[in-house]
Amino acid sequence: MKFEVTILGSSSATPVFNRNPTAQLLNCNEKFYLIDCGEATQQQLIKYNFKASKIDYIFISHLHGDHYFGLIGFLSTMNLNGRIKPIHIFCPEPLKQILELQFHYSETVLNYEIIYTFTHTHKAVEILSNSDVIVETIILNHRVPCTGFKFTQQKKARKLLIDKLELENISTEYYPLLKNGVDLEFPNGKILHNEDYTTEPEPAKSYAYCSDTMFDERYFESISNCDTLYHEATFLHELIERATQTHHSTAIQAAQVAQITGAKKLLIGHFSSRYKTIEPLLLEAKTVFENTHLAIEGLTFSI
Amino acid sequence: MKFEVTILGSSSATPVFNRNPTAQLLNCNEKFYLIDCGEATQQQLIKYNFKASKIDYIFISHLHGDHYFGLIGFLSTMNLNGRIKPIHIFCPEPLKQILELQFHYSETVLNYEIIYTFTHTHKAVEILSNSDVIVETIILNHRVPCTGFKFTQQKKARKLLIDKLELENISTEYYPLLKNGVDLEFPNGKILHNEDYTTEPEPAKSYAYCSDTMFDERYFESISNCDTLYHEATFLHELIERATQTHHSTAIQAAQVAQITGAKKLLIGHFSSRYKTIEPLLLEAKTVFENTHLAIEGLTFSI
Repeated sequence: MKFEVTILGSSSATPVFNRNPTAQLLNCNEKFYLIDCGEATQQQLIKYNFKASKIDYIFISHLHGDHYFGLIGFLSTMNLNGRIKPIHIFCPEPLKQILELQFHYSETVLNYEIIYTFTHTHKAVEILSNSDVIVETIILNHRVPCTGFKFTQQKKARKLLIDKLELENISTEYYPLLKNGVDLEFPNGKILHNEDYTTEPEPAKSYAYCSDTMFDERYFESISNCDTLYHEATFLHELIERATQTHHSTAIQAAQVAQITGAKKLLIGHFSSRYKTIEPLLLEAKTVFENTHLAIEGLTFSI
Repeated sequence: MKFEVTILGSSSATPVFNRNPTAQLLNCNEKFYLIDCGEATQQQLIKYNFKASKIDYIFISHLHGDHYFGLIGFLSTMNLNGRIKPIHIFCPEPLKQILELQFHYSETVLNYEIIYTFTHTHKAVEILSNSDVIVETIILNHRVPCTGFKFTQQKKARKLLIDKLELENISTEYYPLLKNGVDLEFPNGKILHNEDYTTEPEPAKSYAYCSDTMFDERYFESISNCDTLYHEATFLHELIERATQTHHSTAIQAAQVAQITGAKKLLIGHFSSRYKTIEPLLLEAKTVFENTHLAIEGLTFSI
């Protein structure tokens, strides 16, 4: 089952020549989840050859423009392109008013429904659970209310020992029960112990997205032991005062979060426009957490 | 004196791979006027190496998103980049509410002033006159209130016959008066007749921008005898019914407007995303008006 994230934007507040504001596309079992939607995200989707129409879930971390100014255009385009299936948006409540005001003055009546789930910043909660994934909020510490999102795959099915099952002529109709860990007892008294015919499933993997935040232990529990952690790293550590002042993180701090919370892999992004080259941010993070990668436009990371 | 327009976006409602939503940058004597501001206009300015900070005037024709969704990001970036000088925005009145709502929720307090002039669609009027240019609205016929903009250079100074003035030892302090067409009478009774020492100035040139409109004779007078006319040409003429229904124009109609109103040069743009190649639109327009050009991204046209 595919579980990977493609980076559509790696820039902080303002775009620079080769870096766009924040947006990521999560592919979980060929279902697509858009995480934040900076200006020109729809153009990035075109550039990297993704079909916007496949996206059914959108997550907006907070209402700084570099994380949502592309949403109104994205939604408008889907309407013009004939979308009729509903779309789910998880976001701070005022975003609804912002979108509706713009639809109103353009005299746009959407042909599809927007189903809003409003995020809150007092407590991390589960906001979505479907057949593929569970999504929970992460309470970040930024200048305006801001949540990250943790995506965890649904518990996977046990793996069948097909050779053994076929050798014993066990009907395929029992396979779904075995995959779910059920022991089978037949009318003739014969018992199939699940563990003799299946093996442990692959563990469900998790991806945590920490968009804009200062280093704050209070959100560490929400992201413990992630397979992949995306954490903003706006500044080099020499600008830690500026980072704290603006409620952002340095590359070192992002790496420290990965280390402390037991992440297996770290992606860093949201780079300040002051950095013409961003390799120094990577090098700095790697001094603390070796398995760090630059989350830059067009790259896809398996989770 | 420079008077030229650079195209930043040529697409209609939705962006396509190599075409962005509408935006144009007018350079009049090294002062910069942004005309419409579709999503990712700020990225286009970066791409074509224009300094956004040099723009002091913005004109928004109407509140369909492909003409203004890039404005909030553009204004935010200028704030983050330290702008303090005021900016003038000429637009439909509700745009102020749309912008302010987004600034409010991002807790943005601008370091510079936005000076709004609201456009109206009942009468074409002058909305700006500075040392370089006069701007008047054009009342277009679209689905929502929509104005185009006509930019006319201020009347230019008469040209001095420098050789003759120097030969007669006439002080340079009189040159400004002569440039303005004044006859000079000296205390000794000597008279310099202006026409003996100057020649006619170059005529003031004009650029008309007709963003989104159906063919409608009522706006023709506003744009008569333009040096350069930009007119939308969303469809090929075979889709004239669709054009009329959506209050847009065909390439043939754009060319007819140029012909009827006596334009010297026609730029066409706002191409429907259905057209992978846009040369057929050019060929069609040229059958009616030979001096037609495709207004595509990155091209600069002298007016």
